[in-house]
Amino acid sequence: MSEDKTSARPTMRMIADLAGVNISTVSRVLRQPSTDSDSETARRIRHLADKLGYRRDLWAASLRSRRTNALGIVVTRLTDIVMASVYEAIEQHAQARGYLAIAGSSQDDPNQQRSRIEHYIDRKLDGLLIGDAHLHAPFLDELAEREVRFVLFNRSSGEHPSVTWDDELGGAIVAQHFLDLGHERMAIINGLNYSSSGVMRAKGFLAALSKEGVNLPSEMVINAGFDAAAGREAAKELLRLRPRPTAIFAVNDYSAIGAMGVIRDEGLEVGKDIAVVGYNDISIADDLLVPLSSVRVPIDIMGRTAVEMIISQMNGEPVTSRRLTPYLVVRDSSRGRPGKPT
Amino acid sequence: MSEDKTSARPTMRMIADLAGVNISTVSRVLRQPSTDSDSETARRIRHLADKLGYRRDLWAASLRSRRTNALGIVVTRLTDIVMASVYEAIEQHAQARGYLAIAGSSQDDPNQQRSRIEHYIDRKLDGLLIGDAHLHAPFLDELAEREVRFVLFNRSSGEHPSVTWDDELGGAIVAQHFLDLGHERMAIINGLNYSSSGVMRAKGFLAALSKEGVNLPSEMVINAGFDAAAGREAAKELLRLRPRPTAIFAVNDYSAIGAMGVIRDEGLEVGKDIAVVGYNDISIADDLLVPLSSVRVPIDIMGRTAVEMIISQMNGEPVTSRRLTPYLVVRDSSRGRPGKPT
Repeated sequence: MSEDKTSARPTMRMIADLAGVNISTVSRVLRQPSTDSDSETARRIRHLADKLGYRRDLWAASLRSRRTNALGIVVTRLTDIVMASVYEAIEQHAQARGYLAIAGSSQDDPNQQRSRIEHYIDRKLDGLLIGDAHLHAPFLDELAEREVRFVLFNRSSGEHPSVTWDDELGGAIVAQHFLDLGHERMAIINGLNYSSSGVMRAKGFLAALSKEGVNLPSEMVINAGFDAAAGREAAKELLRLRPRPTAIFAVNDYSAIGAMGVIRDEGLEVGKDIAVVGYNDISIADDLLVPLSSVRVPIDIMGRTAVEMIISQMNGEPVTSRRLTPYLVVRDSSRGRPGKPT
Repeated sequence: MSEDKTSARPTMRMIADLAGVNISTVSRVLRQPSTDSDSETARRIRHLADKLGYRRDLWAASLRSRRTNALGIVVTRLTDIVMASVYEAIEQHAQARGYLAIAGSSQDDPNQQRSRIEHYIDRKLDGLLIGDAHLHAPFLDELAEREVRFVLFNRSSGEHPSVTWDDELGGAIVAQHFLDLGHERMAIINGLNYSSSGVMRAKGFLAALSKEGVNLPSEMVINAGFDAAAGREAAKELLRLRPRPTAIFAVNDYSAIGAMGVIRDEGLEVGKDIAVVGYNDISIADDLLVPLSSVRVPIDIMGRTAVEMIISQMNGEPVTSRRLTPYLVVRDSSRGRPGKPT
């Protein structure tokens, strides 16, 4: 590709293709001033941008500087209590900073995500907080190219600015807990493969086990959704195995609750015959008849951080992605030593 | 008050004051054409409107006929799974009719409700669906007066158009169920006194008991909030009583789950020593270790009805309030005969 053969205006995509990186990387580098500590990749991107005569779409950026004092939020589902809680934290911190937050769900469908976001852009909202990013997300690259101001939360994608929980660490903590209790036959009820949150929780869990010489057979790793019904189905599969697992990590509290229901239906006791740990520590985890151990995530901090990040971006300040630290709350569902093999 | 002593333009409030009714009644009557079956009140309102020279604010109504294809939703809390579920049903049915729904919560605070609604009106949304109405709601009267198009859902207030569950019937069903099982010492964990939903559930429950000659002593009626913590506190009070109640109706599943936790902590068995019934039948009710009996409400129908009602109103068609029918789903938490007195 040579400059004089095309009259097309240079785009982030061209730079990304030439540099062999994702658009989100180009976007991140070009949003920030160059420094002496720039990486080799950052230097290559800046060089290509100069050579191609790339200019940020400042007209679009300035058009959008007419403030409406409103932030548009997209989540997978508001019926997901974690998403709803993060949304409410965003709403509260946005309000404290003088912004009204408006929300809607995409049902985790990229087409619905796109139409909702285009609607928010049409209404000239000041910034977007996007909680339903997929790992492969061409539309987010397009938004970066169009200089739309957005911050991802809950899930990351490429190098777009994001605030997530350290899901890999969260998974590793659960592995450590199970090993600590003496479990040897462990299983994981995994999330959806396009969501960074589930993928990273499983990755951290499996890597931490592997480091201790425990490699889970493939039948102990079940791909499922994030709801109770998915947890039920996954647990049914796991309980058909002989020997059964003595500990199950569900990457979501809802699937953990579904799994606990199935364990009960089989006449087994949660926390005695089979340990169960969930993720997110939703408020009812503590009120279940067998209280559920769960990885607790700092929901309010995520909401506050997302609001601070989008406001920084609106002020033209450089924005760095954040990963927040989760921790384990141990309850009766995983307190005992491993049950007898069944 | 005489017409020639004031130059003020006649308002719905004047008519309401003169007729001795709520503004919502005036609004309902004047939105509809007069018929032979008009009530005495309706005739009085029409007569006063004629006499005062009242004209509906058609200019405002026509201004708002510029469609933006968006509906603004307000709920108490999106972390309330029932509210989030109704919102998602609204979102889905709105989308099918070509409207984008946008949401936000008021935390059940009338000031937050007002500022969110004013923001929606500023953005010229086509219509509002309001799920956080209080029984005393001067701002809703003001909206009616301003000819803002809105429909209430979940809670009613005055005669503003609303779609609710038949909460009185829901409460009566639970009373019938407890009497059927042979309970004599029953208690109710009530909701908030400004919300029609809790008030009507309690009213239906107490009235149905009273009809069978059972009048609850006042210590068996606890006013609480709608969450698990509130249910815990209320249950602690109830379990201090001697003799204890053998059956508890919590007007919300969350407070029922909180109550179940306290019953367990006291070493008692839910469904055996003490029956518990909740309200709303949230999805995890069935997955609890002791599955929770609950009054099921048709969430999807509420969402669809709310959307149909606001679209009818936008088309200038008369709109009648709707009450949807709930039914009881009996599970282990209330299957047995009454426990021994303790």
